[in-house]
Amino acid sequence: MAQWIGDLVGGGLGQALQVDDVLYDAVSPYQRIQVAVSPLFGRMLILDDAVQTTERDEYVYHEMLVHLPLVTHPDPTRVLIIGGGDGGTLEEVLKHPVAQATLVEIDRAVIDVSRAYLPGIANGAFDDPRARVLIADGIAFVRETGERFDVVLVDSTDPKGAAEALFGEAFFALCARVLTADGILCLQSGSLLYQRPLAAGMRTALERIFPLVLPYWAAVPAYPGTLWTFTVATRGPDPRTVARDAAARRTAAFGLRYYGPETHHAALALPAVP
Amino acid sequence: MAQWIGDLVGGGLGQALQVDDVLYDAVSPYQRIQVAVSPLFGRMLILDDAVQTTERDEYVYHEMLVHLPLVTHPDPTRVLIIGGGDGGTLEEVLKHPVAQATLVEIDRAVIDVSRAYLPGIANGAFDDPRARVLIADGIAFVRETGERFDVVLVDSTDPKGAAEALFGEAFFALCARVLTADGILCLQSGSLLYQRPLAAGMRTALERIFPLVLPYWAAVPAYPGTLWTFTVATRGPDPRTVARDAAARRTAAFGLRYYGPETHHAALALPAVP
Repeated sequence: MAQWIGDLVGGGLGQALQVDDVLYDAVSPYQRIQVAVSPLFGRMLILDDAVQTTERDEYVYHEMLVHLPLVTHPDPTRVLIIGGGDGGTLEEVLKHPVAQATLVEIDRAVIDVSRAYLPGIANGAFDDPRARVLIADGIAFVRETGERFDVVLVDSTDPKGAAEALFGEAFFALCARVLTADGILCLQSGSLLYQRPLAAGMRTALERIFPLVLPYWAAVPAYPGTLWTFTVATRGPDPRTVARDAAARRTAAFGLRYYGPETHHAALALPAVP
Repeated sequence: MAQWIGDLVGGGLGQALQVDDVLYDAVSPYQRIQVAVSPLFGRMLILDDAVQTTERDEYVYHEMLVHLPLVTHPDPTRVLIIGGGDGGTLEEVLKHPVAQATLVEIDRAVIDVSRAYLPGIANGAFDDPRARVLIADGIAFVRETGERFDVVLVDSTDPKGAAEALFGEAFFALCARVLTADGILCLQSGSLLYQRPLAAGMRTALERIFPLVLPYWAAVPAYPGTLWTFTVATRGPDPRTVARDAAARRTAAFGLRYYGPETHHAALALPAVP
């Protein structure tokens, strides 16, 4: 008999996924970590019962979190990733000619499990000499570090438990502190369909800190409520003014499957969900 | 106790929707027709247990089926819709300065139920003097009519039962027969995630008839496997060459919520689902 997992979200919407096998299931000091196999999505990383990423669709979320802000910045040299222990964001960042990408993940087990069971997501990025991996609390890191970054990417879980602080104004102000003068902050900001107060609240808080704050979206099939939003906050370049030929040239060699110059601009036009 | 409906598709993927109320439930000569209320999507039209459209997200599907081909045509004057009894496609077509939009729906009950329970979807389009509604078999219509159309839109249910023939080469050839010399055919072609053989088969069949066949996509939240495809087949203009300013100008007064000049071009770049 097939096993199913269900991801029930607000508004009476749920996504059910058949599970053929569970490869890993254990509790770390921070969360329950599972790796399960879906016939449709392949191997899936599940944290506290919420699907985080899958082999088959991980590229949508990771390409869109990374390339829109990095292409907006004229020369991203030092990039900070908060969270993102599966390594998918790190892989996309390292496709750019950055000098260093620093990943600060609180839960070492997420990295270890991802590297062991989902190696295709990081695709070797953890072994890149430009990758620096710190097992630490991201909030403490941005509070205490003396380093500065051109781009900060927040690749978090849902706003529950420890991750909740990653969606609040105090944390955004700390991120602003570690950005260079024309730096860019970009965060995942939930579903356009059932988490709109989350993105709206983040936007209001970010607008108290940054002169320009823009939401954008992508279709992430493995997330219920698939219309997924990101929010980019910038003191420097405006993502809306990125030239198509520049976006195409800077990503041409990356082998991307979702992000592209047309998608860059279409993503900034959010569907006007009533 | 809340009632739920489930839409299980291939690959062990399902979407579950809570139902607060069922407003209509009856069997027509062609199918079971239900109108149910979801807390997230509002009123939903359900045919043979598959959600067809909802109050909250209908604009995505209808705008994308209609405006990409109509904007591609320099002057769509006569438009044919096969299916589309809910009236959403008709509404979008009539936003253009067409002389006439002919809707051929096999099941009168779909129109009657939609007009009674989901009036916001057609939004008065059935009462537009440019709308001509025929209760007839769409296949027989395109086989027998002497009329010619600039654009033919196929707004069908899933390829099951009577609708299955709407996905086959014999029907596509009949559609080609009723098109003007530079006419455009556009059809819904299923999920990019779990129905790819469907779209691939349609494309192959269409390429035997039309010199240019292109898939495009939109994110339709109420459909499980949300990455939804359409296929445009043309003897005339190429959708990829539509100028952004022309697309913007021709749709500026329409109050659109998903389609736009950026989305037109991004839609033609399908995510490369592995």
